[in-house]
Amino acid sequence: MTRNANIRDEARQVDVRPPCIILCEPQLGENIGTAARAMANFGLTDLRIVNPRDGWPSDKARAAASRADHVIDCVQVFDSVEAAVADLTYVYATTARSREISKPVRGPDEAALKLTELGASDLATGYLFGRERWGLNNDEVALADEIVTLPVDPEFASLNIAQAVLVCAYEWRKTAVKDALPFRLNEELHPPAAKEDVVRFFDHLESALDTVTFFRPPERRPNMVLTLRNIFQKAELTDQEVRALRGVVAALENRRTRPRPEEPRVKTKGVQATNDQDES
Amino acid sequence: MTRNANIRDEARQVDVRPPCIILCEPQLGENIGTAARAMANFGLTDLRIVNPRDGWPSDKARAAASRADHVIDCVQVFDSVEAAVADLTYVYATTARSREISKPVRGPDEAALKLTELGASDLATGYLFGRERWGLNNDEVALADEIVTLPVDPEFASLNIAQAVLVCAYEWRKTAVKDALPFRLNEELHPPAAKEDVVRFFDHLESALDTVTFFRPPERRPNMVLTLRNIFQKAELTDQEVRALRGVVAALENRRTRPRPEEPRVKTKGVQATNDQDES
Repeated sequence: MTRNANIRDEARQVDVRPPCIILCEPQLGENIGTAARAMANFGLTDLRIVNPRDGWPSDKARAAASRADHVIDCVQVFDSVEAAVADLTYVYATTARSREISKPVRGPDEAALKLTELGASDLATGYLFGRERWGLNNDEVALADEIVTLPVDPEFASLNIAQAVLVCAYEWRKTAVKDALPFRLNEELHPPAAKEDVVRFFDHLESALDTVTFFRPPERRPNMVLTLRNIFQKAELTDQEVRALRGVVAALENRRTRPRPEEPRVKTKGVQATNDQDES
Repeated sequence: MTRNANIRDEARQVDVRPPCIILCEPQLGENIGTAARAMANFGLTDLRIVNPRDGWPSDKARAAASRADHVIDCVQVFDSVEAAVADLTYVYATTARSREISKPVRGPDEAALKLTELGASDLATGYLFGRERWGLNNDEVALADEIVTLPVDPEFASLNIAQAVLVCAYEWRKTAVKDALPFRLNEELHPPAAKEDVVRFFDHLESALDTVTFFRPPERRPNMVLTLRNIFQKAELTDQEVRALRGVVAALENRRTRPRPEEPRVKTKGVQATNDQDES
């Protein structure tokens, strides 16, 4: 099977300018690379690095990026956060702890909403991430418009930088594509069954059960029928599934199933959903 | 500063049974460890592994878990997905590609909603993740109730397993704590200003500007006043900020600022937000 065949158009539809990601003084090339991969997963490409400890370019970053080369190739390096955010109009600083700063604190979903609104007007925006060990200092946070933090378990709040990038990028894309997923249940391949076919299956099942005197005592029949019908109603059966179930009942009734035209002498071995089963 | 002081109670409040995470035949101990850390970040602890390629326990997994030892210590190893899900009542299979399977496909947010609903009734649930290289096979997906997939960029859809675990765990916790963040803007430390104080600041600023004949020509005064007032209204000033701004205006007016009681002869050097500035 081809990977990602039949991608829904809505999942590709990003009509807003994506934010950039700014990593302030990252220490490990691996973290830069993993952040780049996380960005690529959710359609972000503008990665900016302020004073990477081990310099740039970085082989470790490229290796960790797992083929997100288009992000790594375009990395810009800056010598201050001021320079890195200079062309942006709105910036979120990410922090894992509360601060004595009078600045609104948002969740990644709220931040994503704000940045997609601004991105819809083609405004340049960004997320600012701090150092692995101790994050951003207050002067750096002051350069941002608002703070974003994650709803972590306070008992285990230390999040890897690339993981924090991932969650912000995920929320951004989710908002930008309006919750569209690359694929959903394929209703062309699996059209839901028409009620008349479902009811015909019920009738078939119940008459087969009548034949073997399943409903005993007879006064319990109405309730048992309701129970059985509810089971199958909850399953939201497709067309194909109704045909398969009728095949099952026919097989259990010991009816002879029709041979396939192309395999005239095939043995009936269990149920095949693609068989044309006898209609009762 | 103590990290994570003043954590809001709502952010700790998880009243629902958390889901487990099942990794099917993971190859790399690092991925198991990073997944364990991601789980711990969002309050999940029940990690189950089906046939880990390099056996169990794994030093690499423990190192990559970055002190999520409480997750690593409780890992359960199974020899089949059937065994790993046996005690669960609802399971999501995660997959990155559409399949010929008639099963609803959900986003991580929708899945989180379902599992927190079930967890509120103390039902055991789980997320099933596939192998690094090729995910889950169709028989394994068939063991799940529904499918969960991420809104990735279809052009770069290959997500690291631990990253996929992270997003599912994040959405679960976000739902379980009802969007509570560990901290928000501290409104006790930063109470919003009363309107009368804001208006008094406006009056102060405008009278200072009148003194230096800022509003020229005079007929432009009403519009310019509106412009200035709007700037400060948008800032949603706190009490402290209004005091700081009044200090700024007083300083620019060359008024003498009151010396602090404890520092009777302090020189006025710029503005200090904690100064008590003269009230006009």
